[in-house]
Amino acid sequence: MSETTVVVFGDQPPIRLDRLAGRARVVVCDESSLPEQLPTADVLLVWDFTSDAVRDAWPGEGPRPRWVHTASAGVDRLLSPELTASDTVLTNARGVFEQPIAEYVAGLVIAMAKDFHGSWELQRQRRWQHRETMRLAGSRAVVVGAGPIGRAIGSTLAALGVVVDLVGRTAREGVHGGDELPELLSRADWVVCAAPLTESNRGMFDRTAFARMKSTARFINVGRGPLVVEKDLSAALTARQIAGAALDVFEHEPLAADDPLWDVPGLFVSPHMSGDTVGWRDHLAEQFQDNYDRWAAGEPLLNVVDKRLGYVPVD
Amino acid sequence: MSETTVVVFGDQPPIRLDRLAGRARVVVCDESSLPEQLPTADVLLVWDFTSDAVRDAWPGEGPRPRWVHTASAGVDRLLSPELTASDTVLTNARGVFEQPIAEYVAGLVIAMAKDFHGSWELQRQRRWQHRETMRLAGSRAVVVGAGPIGRAIGSTLAALGVVVDLVGRTAREGVHGGDELPELLSRADWVVCAAPLTESNRGMFDRTAFARMKSTARFINVGRGPLVVEKDLSAALTARQIAGAALDVFEHEPLAADDPLWDVPGLFVSPHMSGDTVGWRDHLAEQFQDNYDRWAAGEPLLNVVDKRLGYVPVD
Repeated sequence: MSETTVVVFGDQPPIRLDRLAGRARVVVCDESSLPEQLPTADVLLVWDFTSDAVRDAWPGEGPRPRWVHTASAGVDRLLSPELTASDTVLTNARGVFEQPIAEYVAGLVIAMAKDFHGSWELQRQRRWQHRETMRLAGSRAVVVGAGPIGRAIGSTLAALGVVVDLVGRTAREGVHGGDELPELLSRADWVVCAAPLTESNRGMFDRTAFARMKSTARFINVGRGPLVVEKDLSAALTARQIAGAALDVFEHEPLAADDPLWDVPGLFVSPHMSGDTVGWRDHLAEQFQDNYDRWAAGEPLLNVVDKRLGYVPVD
Repeated sequence: MSETTVVVFGDQPPIRLDRLAGRARVVVCDESSLPEQLPTADVLLVWDFTSDAVRDAWPGEGPRPRWVHTASAGVDRLLSPELTASDTVLTNARGVFEQPIAEYVAGLVIAMAKDFHGSWELQRQRRWQHRETMRLAGSRAVVVGAGPIGRAIGSTLAALGVVVDLVGRTAREGVHGGDELPELLSRADWVVCAAPLTESNRGMFDRTAFARMKSTARFINVGRGPLVVEKDLSAALTARQIAGAALDVFEHEPLAADDPLWDVPGLFVSPHMSGDTVGWRDHLAEQFQDNYDRWAAGEPLLNVVDKRLGYVPVD
């Protein structure tokens, strides 16, 4: 059997694949060398998951990787019709980001409930101004996205006494179907978007969705930027149709310095980092190598994405 | 039986005691009229708990209230040697503040772990700067104060995966004794002070205590200001001996506009509001009236403070 070639797309910061030494030929490439290397790959590791280069370079015909692994939860940037139609197996980084993102969202929710931002502003002005804040326990959250990330967010908020409704594509035990979302939005104190981006939910948080929310509601997006119509969110915040929002993901990343979103009143902007805790890249490298061991042994891979759905199906 | 007189100290904002109508004569007084009214009171309700007036005005001899209730968790501002020695029963607002304060502290912990403040600063500068943040789960917290507030903080942090050590005056099941504190401080990522202020713990968080903490540790005080030597905390933060702190309580409240604490690097200042969620004053009024029903019926009161200890003992 000839040597396996693992093509790694992206090398910033460099990945350490010590466990592949002597077992595979590892070729690191960037956007310009990717089209040339892709047909030589048995395995493609998408280490830079912020680029569209893999979708653009995916071979229409002829040799192609048999397995693609992406070091991300979302696969929206990879999925071309050709990849979906092929027999290439696609796996993702399910398991790495769930708990960190859940902690992050819980923190955003409390920071908003307790108006930490207001206290920071007052501190800058050296003003002692007591306010009454919001009780978290007994408030209501709708979490859109019933995959591992949405579920982790739901259980973390529930542990803080928040009443949580989880919304998925289809209704099942413990999960509301998308048809119930309009009604749920109208009752929620917190609306959290943690859905994968697919063609059917692009732009789902638009003016109609924000108009359904309470004027005291806050919106949080840790899913993917294009799930939200940013200008509609800006308008809703500016008109005080909703009370606040936090975006960790954006239509265009990184957000340009002149993007109007930086200044929208009541909007907290963070640079796509909700899941990235110290050591996350080592964790991602270990996860890929664990799956490589299975692949080399001919065992079924973990975290296989259903390419038509655009995510790893969970029960 | 002659009519009961309830003296209410403080009337901002006015308290509603509808359930006492026709059952008691309610007299509201301020600092100047308190000394005159105090001897006429069967019951004293300390509605303004931010003042030393009650301690100053407490009658040395002669008629005095048989029951004093304070609309606060801490009783440090009330307790004079004369009150402690008397047979006057003292009750507090145990039960109102625990969960709100626990939510607040959990929010501070996550905000610090995820560097929300840094993201806010970068947003003001329109800078997209990805950082790795800290995982909450598996980090270690020491909560000083094993009363209801400390316990609520402990369980809330534990629900977020934090490993929590609770420290009380004396060791008991699930609670470390104060003698173990130095060792615990040296291992903690989070040091939370939620202790009542007594003569024995005044200034317990001083340069020695901060010197024991890790350089990555963060300190939070939601107990009482004088538990902390503020200049020692400022020095520890300025020298980066510890990584950050949040104070909700201070030696002198309100904090003066020219207090140097507003500007200490890595210090988050909030105006003694961690427990004050919407409706808290109604909750406090209901709690007093519930206890009044017991008192009128000759039943034992709830939340009786051990005046020598300075708090309501819990198992």
